Order: sequence, then structure tokens, then C-alpha cells
Amino acid sequence: MQVLREHILLNCLRDVLESQHVSIQFRENTGCMIPIQVSLLPSLSTLVDSGQITENNSGDVMPVAVMIDILRASTTIVHALANGASAILPCSSVEQAHELAHEPASSQNAPKRLLGGERHCQKIEGFDLDNSPFSYTPELVQDREIIFTTTNGTIALEHCRSASMILVGAFVNLSSLIDALVECGRPVHLMCAGTDRQLTAEDILFAGAVCDRLLSRPASEFEIADVQSQLALDFYRTRGLKRPDFEKTMLESLGAANLLRLGLEADVQRAMQVDLFKLVPVWNPATNRIAALP
Amino acid sequence: MQVLREHILLNCLRDVLESQHVSIQFRENTGCMIPIQVSLLPSLSTLVDSGQITENNSGDVMPVAVMIDILRASTTIVHALANGASAILPCSSVEQAHELAHEPASSQNAPKRLLGGERHCQKIEGFDLDNSPFSYTPELVQDREIIFTTTNGTIALEHCRSASMILVGAFVNLSSLIDALVECGRPVHLMCAGTDRQLTAEDILFAGAVCDRLLSRPASEFEIADVQSQLALDFYRTRGLKRPDFEKTMLESLGAANLLRLGLEADVQRAMQVDLFKLVPVWNPATNRIAALP
Repeated sequence: MQVLREHILLNCLRDVLESQHVSIQFRENTGCMIPIQVSLLPSLSTLVDSGQITENNSGDVMPVAVMIDILRASTTIVHALANGASAILPCSSVEQAHELAHEPASSQNAPKRLLGGERHCQKIEGFDLDNSPFSYTPELVQDREIIFTTTNGTIALEHCRSASMILVGAFVNLSSLIDALVECGRPVHLMCAGTDRQLTAEDILFAGAVCDRLLSRPASEFEIADVQSQLALDFYRTRGLKRPDFEKTMLESLGAANLLRLGLEADVQRAMQVDLFKLVPVWNPATNRIAALP
Repeated sequence: MQVLREHILLNCLRDVLESQHVSIQFRENTGCMIPIQVSLLPSLSTLVDSGQITENNSGDVMPVAVMIDILRASTTIVHALANGASAILPCSSVEQAHELAHEPASSQNAPKRLLGGERHCQKIEGFDLDNSPFSYTPELVQDREIIFTTTNGTIALEHCRSASMILVGAFVNLSSLIDALVECGRPVHLMCAGTDRQLTAEDILFAGAVCDRLLSRPASEFEIADVQSQLALDFYRTRGLKRPDFEKTMLESLGAANLLRLGLEADVQRAMQVDLFKLVPVWNPATNRIAALP
């Protein structure tokens, strides 16, 4: 990882020089590659849970993690922030959500927090909002904090805790996420949430799409670095590159099956829209708030 | 699964008619497909552990399972049986192996059982044989029972216990395995052992190769039935179809890395040989013996 530290120093140097209007081109010549890893499920993660750090004890640069729960937590979080929610407060249990709802808000004049999320794909009793991206309208969420708990997404977030930065990715913000990862220049760890501890196609398809986009950039410095990222990439290139294949894979996924059974095909269709929004949610585990990356 | 039961009845009928020298052709017209599933790791298995049964409570036909630990348990088991060992007795711990070694042999005149296997890729203290396919020579193993324990392979076998039949697959017996699976006509479950609970390319490559072979048969009745089999198939077709890609993927795998560090490249090269032997090991959990399928 020594070369990576060098790479980051070089990037800092470039930023300083560029701020002085000195344009330089040395990135292509450093020969150091930025690794991308994938966890097909949180339980398959190789990210060590040791608190949020930028370097581990060996001096390795800690990666930026991306939480991926396409159906529907990732997609819905992007919608909520795009429609004006001031923050999402993720929590792992319904009890914790209710406790948080009774805590004083972050500022005295802040409006009452909303409770959102799902269990078994359905709205939780006593909650204001379910987990559909369509529920998080500007009328309801503008300037509101949303306490949010979902079956798979919040577990996946927890598994990202030790990363140096934790982003939320979905097809609806794919290009903005790619820009953020390139800008960041750190190793990338793509954390698929899965569905009830099982691998699910829609999350893996997205992880593969991110790998494909990062690798396909001109003079890309990224490289896939483990068998899980190879699996996701091959899966995406086989079953996701062409739009009809992509839609078939999404609609036949385990996550979609659960939603289609409940008549929620519109949610699946919405999650399949690419680049609806230009924002990247970022989770700060210290404050437990997800907000849009500045 | 109703159609599958019908399929098996039709196959029985065909066998009876064919034994009467009546040739019929109805397999292509039944329209029922035989599902293939893959577990990329034992912990990701969807096979229920409920004892060896041919039908579960729902009347579903239980699959034939294939234990896959290419580097090296599967490969070595095939070598041992091909070189004349009368049976392999798998066990999960070194202690259990020593206990078994002190039990009376299956027949009075049977020669002393051999102890084989590895921990951390190396021979276990007090054992006769390590886990290299080259160690199981005819001179050493002919007519001998071999008590066998390896880090990953024996765990994977345990996870196959509820299947209706449990085979052992490796590149060295690939075509014979395919013939056995086709002959069997049951759903197929491919159980990858992995390396120290991590996904490893060589096992997934083999699972993908089995999927590819079964799907590519003329008028194949097989179909891949879950996201793990899709992942394995796409991985194999991307990184295993052409021989140079195949060798690169094998040599860069996690399993190979562990062996190369110990100077055991010859073992990896041997595991990459296709169809060295025409036999399929089958494990009977009731007697805990692995022998060649008759």
C-alpha cells in the first residue's frame, strides 16, 4: 500500500499546484493503481470493523465504502435528500428508531423528526413513512430529519463503519457517485446489502456497474482487486450492459420478487432509472447522520 | 417441483421401455427443466441440513450435491481412488482422524488405514500423507482405506449432507462428473468449499465450468436457477473458457497463492489438468465412506 500513500500525496500536490493555476499531468505516470473491492454480502466483507480511521495499523490507506441496497434503502435515501430532507438518521431496530424520535432535535426550531422505513417491505406501525422512494415527497420531507430503519440497508451501513468515508450508491445517483469516487482517489469498497442475508442480483448488478464505470474511464487508475469484484463485474457485463438485459436481471432479482408480490413494481421501475439526481449521500457514523456530500 | 417428479417418472418409464429394447424420444418434449444451484461458500448454501433424503416435506426432489475443493481436497480424493484406494473416510478434526485410525478396520484382513490431509496446506504431525495429489501413489494407497481431513473440503462435505447423493468434482474428473449428473437427472447443487471461509476463484471457476457444460449439451434440460449459479457461470465464461485465461485465473486464485508460497506449484498445475481420470467419488454419509461411483 506504500504506492497508494504516494498516490494520495501526489494528488494533494496536484490540488495545491492547480489552486495556483499550475496545470500538471503526472497521474498517468505514477503506475500505482487504486484497488476496488466488493462484498457480495455484509457477512463476506473484508473491511475490518475497527472504528472510522483513515489508515490502519499497517499504514494501509482505508477505503471509501459505498453502501448498496438498491431495493430500496439506497434509492430511497437519495430521493429523500434530493427532495430536501436535512438528514437521514439510520438505526438498526424499530425500538431504537422510536427512542431517537423522542430525543430533542438538533436545533430548537427544527421541525419534528419523521419516522421512515420498513420490515418485510411494509410500513412499520406508528411510522410516518414506508420505504418507497415515492413517499419521500418535497411536501413531506423538506427540511425534516428522517429516522430510518430498514431490514438490510442499516446492517450494510454498520459493516462500512471502519471505512474512511461512507457513501450511499444507487442507479438514481450513479454518475455522481462515480465522480465522487474518482475525486476521492482512495481504494473503493462496494458493500452489497443483499436480501435477508442472501445474495441478490440488483445490488451485485450495481456493484458491477460501478466497477465497469471506474475501469472504463480514459487512463483509469482503478483496478478490481478481489474475486468478489471480478464476479460482480462479469455479472454486470453479462447481464446488465444492454438495457433489456438490465431490466430482466433487475425484475427477476430476489429483491424485486419481494416487491412485485406486494404490487410495488413502480418502486422497482424507479430504482432502475439512472442518474435521476446529482447528489451523493454520505454517512457520518460519529453523528449518525446521512446528508448530501457538499 | 411437480414437473420434476413427473420428469423422474418419465425417466424411469424410459429406462423400463429401453430395457425392453423399445427406444423412445420424449425427453425433449416434456418442457421441464432441471435446476442447477451453486453455493459460492458453504455458509451461503441454501441446502437444508435435515439428513439425507430424496424428497423434502414439500415433496420437492432433493438435489445431487457436488463437493468442490479444487485446491486440493477434491483433486486429491480423485487421485487416491484412481490409484486404488478402497475408500476415503472424511473427518472434520485431527482428533477424530486419530480416533478413527484406532478403530478396527472394516474387514479382518484389511491393511492398516492411512492418515492423510492437511492443516495450513501442510502435512499433519503423525499423519502418513499430506494433501498433495502426488502423494497418493498406487504403491502407497492400493487397497487401503484413507482417513482424510482437510481445512475446507470436509466442512463443505458436511454442508452437502442433506442431498440425495453427494459427489466429488474436480477438473481431473470433469467429464465423468458431467456424465454422472446427466445420468442422475436430478437437480444439481454445486458446493464450493472456499478457502478459510473466503470465496476463492478456483472453486467458482469449476462450478461455472459444470454449469457451462450442462447448459451447453444438445437439447439440454438443465437451467441455472439462482444468482450464485449466474455469478459462477459468468465468471467461468469470462475468465475460464480460453485456456490462457483459465490458467491465469487458477494461478492468481487465493487457493493457489497459499500453495505457491509453499513451493507447491506442481499441485496447482496438476489440479488444472482436465479429465485425467474417469471416475466420480461418491460420499455415503451413513457409512462415512467415499468410494468410486459404480
